[in-house]
Amino acid sequence: MIKAGIIGGTGYTGVELLRLLNKHPEVEVVAISSRSLNGQRVDSIFPSLLGHSDLEFSLPDDKSLNECNVVFFATPHGVAMEGAGSFIEKGIKVIDLGADFRISDATEWSKWYDMEHTQAELLKQAVYGLSENNRDQIKNAKLIANPGCYPTAVQLALKPLITNNLVDLSSIVADCKSGVSGAGRAANQAMLLCETSETMKAYGVSGHRHYPEIKQELELLAGEEVGFTFVPHLVPMIRGMHVTLYVDLLDTDTDVRPFFVNTYSNEPFVTILNDGVYPETRSVKSSNFCQIAIQKIPNSNKLVIMSVIDNLVKGASGQAIQNMNIMFDLDEELGLEQIGLLP
Amino acid sequence: MIKAGIIGGTGYTGVELLRLLNKHPEVEVVAISSRSLNGQRVDSIFPSLLGHSDLEFSLPDDKSLNECNVVFFATPHGVAMEGAGSFIEKGIKVIDLGADFRISDATEWSKWYDMEHTQAELLKQAVYGLSENNRDQIKNAKLIANPGCYPTAVQLALKPLITNNLVDLSSIVADCKSGVSGAGRAANQAMLLCETSETMKAYGVSGHRHYPEIKQELELLAGEEVGFTFVPHLVPMIRGMHVTLYVDLLDTDTDVRPFFVNTYSNEPFVTILNDGVYPETRSVKSSNFCQIAIQKIPNSNKLVIMSVIDNLVKGASGQAIQNMNIMFDLDEELGLEQIGLLP
Amino acid sequence: MIKAGIIGGTGYTGVELLRLLNKHPEVEVVAISSRSLNGQRVDSIFPSLLGHSDLEFSLPDDKSLNECNVVFFATPHGVAMEGAGSFIEKGIKVIDLGADFRISDATEWSKWYDMEHTQAELLKQAVYGLSENNRDQIKNAKLIANPGCYPTAVQLALKPLITNNLVDLSSIVADCKSGVSGAGRAANQAMLLCETSETMKAYGVSGHRHYPEIKQELELLAGEEVGFTFVPHLVPMIRGMHVTLYVDLLDTDTDVRPFFVNTYSNEPFVTILNDGVYPETRSVKSSNFCQIAIQKIPNSNKLVIMSVIDNLVKGASGQAIQNMNIMFDLDEELGLEQIGLLP
Amino acid sequence: MIKAGIIGGTGYTGVELLRLLNKHPEVEVVAISSRSLNGQRVDSIFPSLLGHSDLEFSLPDDKSLNECNVVFFATPHGVAMEGAGSFIEKGIKVIDLGADFRISDATEWSKWYDMEHTQAELLKQAVYGLSENNRDQIKNAKLIANPGCYPTAVQLALKPLITNNLVDLSSIVADCKSGVSGAGRAANQAMLLCETSETMKAYGVSGHRHYPEIKQELELLAGEEVGFTFVPHLVPMIRGMHVTLYVDLLDTDTDVRPFFVNTYSNEPFVTILNDGVYPETRSVKSSNFCQIAIQKIPNSNKLVIMSVIDNLVKGASGQAIQNMNIMFDLDEELGLEQIGLLP
Repeated sequence: MIKAGIIGGTGYTGVELLRLLNKHPEVEVVAISSRSLNGQRVDSIFPSLLGHSDLEFSLPDDKSLNECNVVFFATPHGVAMEGAGSFIEKGIKVIDLGADFRISDATEWSKWYDMEHTQAELLKQAVYGLSENNRDQIKNAKLIANPGCYPTAVQLALKPLITNNLVDLSSIVADCKSGVSGAGRAANQAMLLCETSETMKAYGVSGHRHYPEIKQELELLAGEEVGFTFVPHLVPMIRGMHVTLYVDLLDTDTDVRPFFVNTYSNEPFVTILNDGVYPETRSVKSSNFCQIAIQKIPNSNKLVIMSVIDNLVKGASGQAIQNMNIMFDLDEELGLEQIGLLP
Repeated sequence: MIKAGIIGGTGYTGVELLRLLNKHPEVEVVAISSRSLNGQRVDSIFPSLLGHSDLEFSLPDDKSLNECNVVFFATPHGVAMEGAGSFIEKGIKVIDLGADFRISDATEWSKWYDMEHTQAELLKQAVYGLSENNRDQIKNAKLIANPGCYPTAVQLALKPLITNNLVDLSSIVADCKSGVSGAGRAANQAMLLCETSETMKAYGVSGHRHYPEIKQELELLAGEEVGFTFVPHLVPMIRGMHVTLYVDLLDTDTDVRPFFVNTYSNEPFVTILNDGVYPETRSVKSSNFCQIAIQKIPNSNKLVIMSVIDNLVKGASGQAIQNMNIMFDLDEELGLEQIGLLP
Repeated sequence: MIKAGIIGGTGYTGVELLRLLNKHPEVEVVAISSRSLNGQRVDSIFPSLLGHSDLEFSLPDDKSLNECNVVFFATPHGVAMEGAGSFIEKGIKVIDLGADFRISDATEWSKWYDMEHTQAELLKQAVYGLSENNRDQIKNAKLIANPGCYPTAVQLALKPLITNNLVDLSSIVADCKSGVSGAGRAANQAMLLCETSETMKAYGVSGHRHYPEIKQELELLAGEEVGFTFVPHLVPMIRGMHVTLYVDLLDTDTDVRPFFVNTYSNEPFVTILNDGVYPETRSVKSSNFCQIAIQKIPNSNKLVIMSVIDNLVKGASGQAIQNMNIMFDLDEELGLEQIGLLP
Repeated sequence: MIKAGIIGGTGYTGVELLRLLNKHPEVEVVAISSRSLNGQRVDSIFPSLLGHSDLEFSLPDDKSLNECNVVFFATPHGVAMEGAGSFIEKGIKVIDLGADFRISDATEWSKWYDMEHTQAELLKQAVYGLSENNRDQIKNAKLIANPGCYPTAVQLALKPLITNNLVDLSSIVADCKSGVSGAGRAANQAMLLCETSETMKAYGVSGHRHYPEIKQELELLAGEEVGFTFVPHLVPMIRGMHVTLYVDLLDTDTDVRPFFVNTYSNEPFVTILNDGVYPETRSVKSSNFCQIAIQKIPNSNKLVIMSVIDNLVKGASGQAIQNMNIMFDLDEELGLEQIGLLP
């Protein structure tokens, strides 16, 4: 059994790790930390766990964490940066669900996250954990930078086009829509039900922290600069992310479907939908799947790609477990076999 | 492996059976019927199943159903009544998620369901499948009448009080609230999002089909007549049922908690909450659990009992599988270990 | 023109006062205060007001408030208590949408609101502003205690029964359901969309601040003690309140409908629904109406009364304006003629 | 007083016309038709109207309609086409909220609406009723084709750019999001709460009926061909439409703000938001306003325009009344002064 610890388990990615790992046949969660809830039972905070877990929250420096084989950071940015090193030194694998190691350039990171990056050495070791792209490096990684939710949905949608050189890279548009859980569980007036239900809006249009992450990874994939417009929107639902991408095909006559099918033919969690079928976020609710559809626009060279994930699963905790499975040489699907909850 | 079939798999209890049975280690779903969708892939109708199932809908008289060990009817009332017999004759167990065998008096049934009951003999054989109440009869049953959602939540909440003779049985009030999925998946103006979102209302106040079912079962438990007022309400959410019960204690000084704890101490799916903690429907969303809280009203003999279930799981498909597990002498929790989805 | 001021205009009752008063033909809002937003345009905080208002938030001691004819306190409890006196001394009418003057016994108030009541003299002057009950006193009042939302819906539903001595007063049950806006606009983890959507629950079952208010007023109406059980629930919608009341008729054969019809025949904002029709909260969304239905339970002496209001209108800001209209001898419906928003 | 009639008043645009016209100081609704509800009170179908209206549904050929000064068709396509002529002959103005007269080329119309267009002569008389664009023609029109919801939000957002020749017209992308009420009130499995809540998706990606309408009008405005990609999405809310437009500026250095401000400086219902402020659909919920924001994307020639309307008001019934006001030489804002409902 792999012993797992969770640092910062009071948010939505924390409880989602608990939900999934609790049923993972090769993992036991031995510790979960929260400064503010130290000593309280986890099922008193998340009553969905009643009957499933006797865990209590501990302090983040509790020694039980040092007995883990893997530690997940489900913390705001800045925390994993300071805490990851001591685990890695002890040979404990670290998976950071936050943003601390996603951007390889520390200066660029600091610009977007309003904070100095203090761990340049760790940053070099970190592997960007988009499982489908970096499986080999993940296998041997000590430190995983688990991707952001938008970057996951966008990269999976664009990969077949970029690796096969099918589109104009100078002018990609990503119109992205997210459920409210992406904003986390902290008290926040703007995320009250009465402020987010029965309404929608764009936000971060002039610059969102996932933009440099997406751009970095797309350019790595393309080997050249990518012109990328990214507009996130907040949609009145708990879970779910829908990205709609608009690209210009280099050759209007190309049938792009085979490239999508081939790219993902062996991927357990990426599904290419049939012609004329468009994805709904609920089809992947609570599951680790990404469903992708493509639609050529008649009489133009425009291609629309639609991609949906559950932002808390494939966009966060599920992908973290997928990465853990790869790191520990387990079946990649282990603990992630759940079928989406519909309705 | 138990071979299972589903008659009428296009509604919410049908897809919920598929979601749960697909991961049940001892069951294989070999057939699912739908007249209107005959020949279509199940995952084309329920895209949450993409990557999980290659099933296709068949006609209800498809011979594959005769090779089953158990057949679930997930059909409107009137269908199982006509179809159950031929399966039972072949030694195939039948679990009816509909209402055809819930009321033991055929005349009473006809009054509430506006239709003649044609199968008086089958009705006698049927066992009412509230797993926690009738485990022994369920074990040997050939035909299970799976309880309605309201009756499940109400009976579990009242059982400790009735079996221990703690309350005045002449004046029980059940104020019940249900998510919209209880109304099914058929096209229905009244259940459009624009008709049910951002609003709530009572319905069926002068008489609801679950009333005679609840009354029958409570009276069986009590061994005497029960005065019971039942008001269901429709609440703007997909899943979830919350019942709030108001009863008069015979002795104001009785501490009722031990009776609840004892009644359910060995039940895998019923949880009694701590004092001062009240249940939320989301705590059991997607799970087979029922969570119950009790609160004595100060300076009165009034006791309030609150009970929550997922109407599609413990209130329908989950309890059907729980009954199947009992019938086939499997671990009662098999295939039902999911943790509720939160948030 | 009546000059109106609003103290504490950053919450939902504040913006609702602005929405309604802005179109009131006899009122001009000349000042609205907020310490934290002093100097900011109101339409920058509430963009629904763009194009309708040039108001800016001021400090609560801004002299413009002293030029008002009426001041509304839309503040948490404790604020109006301290601030009302100075306005009243200047001959300015005060309407408190908060709880400071709702309970006539200062000791009882302190027990429920965890705070000393410092204004026993003002408390004596305050008139409880349920417009339909206290119209005559409201006409001459200097200080109005605007009722809570639950108390409004409950009292309107019970008045015809109590004043006509039709029901057993020892055992009334009020099962109440509210939209989330009742919890206000302050940052609050428990009221995030992800915590309140797709779920429902009871709260305050062992004691809610509206309980003593309801009990006080019902007993005033009845002239005797009333046994009252009150369980509020939180329902996943923004606006709307549905109360379901269970009472025992003294005489099972009484036709109670005429008493309801007569009680409200001249009331502009209370509608008694036809037999067999039950109210939906959306029917009164954004309007000042209360819709009430009654249903006798067959074979019992139980009567169910259902009453719906918009908690922010008839349950708060609308009723405050109704009271203002009465105080200033205006047509009671002025500024409150809006039709509910459906869908 | 203008006498108004409504043909087909059982849908959401019908009840919205009733809500708005009921408070219009210069209009009296004298007839509303519905074959299926003939003889029933309107407030029995739409209980929000209780206390506001004594209207009953009549048959569509009821003679009361011939006494009107204006008739609104709130009907599915195909109905106004057949019925409008007889009213126009009698000198009665007709405003069609449906699609019958929106596309000037009958052949093109037939292609998109799967039905022959039988009224080529009427089609020539029809004026496209985007109030802000065609005010002069509307003034003298006998027959108004009230624009679709998407076309309204898109055209208002693009007009300043097109009329001032600021953008590349060959590659405009419109990513559009609509609340569910746009799909109407007919029974429809796909629009059940359980099918549309907690999920979102794109639809009509390969071709939506509003596409040719938008393209026609943009090209009229531009005087040249426009390359336009249009992807509508369904979002889990009742009302509201958010369009996000991506265009390439011809000159990256142009400050486009003044063009937006100037275009709409005298328009009562269009608001240009300040820099850095993005619109929310709820800001215009229940109101006739359109709020527009612009955001230049750094280091690119990409401009993002965001535009929100209430699809049932400015996107349907409100704009129809605005057109009526223009036709009858009334103040354009009459009856449309409502402030958006927030929250």
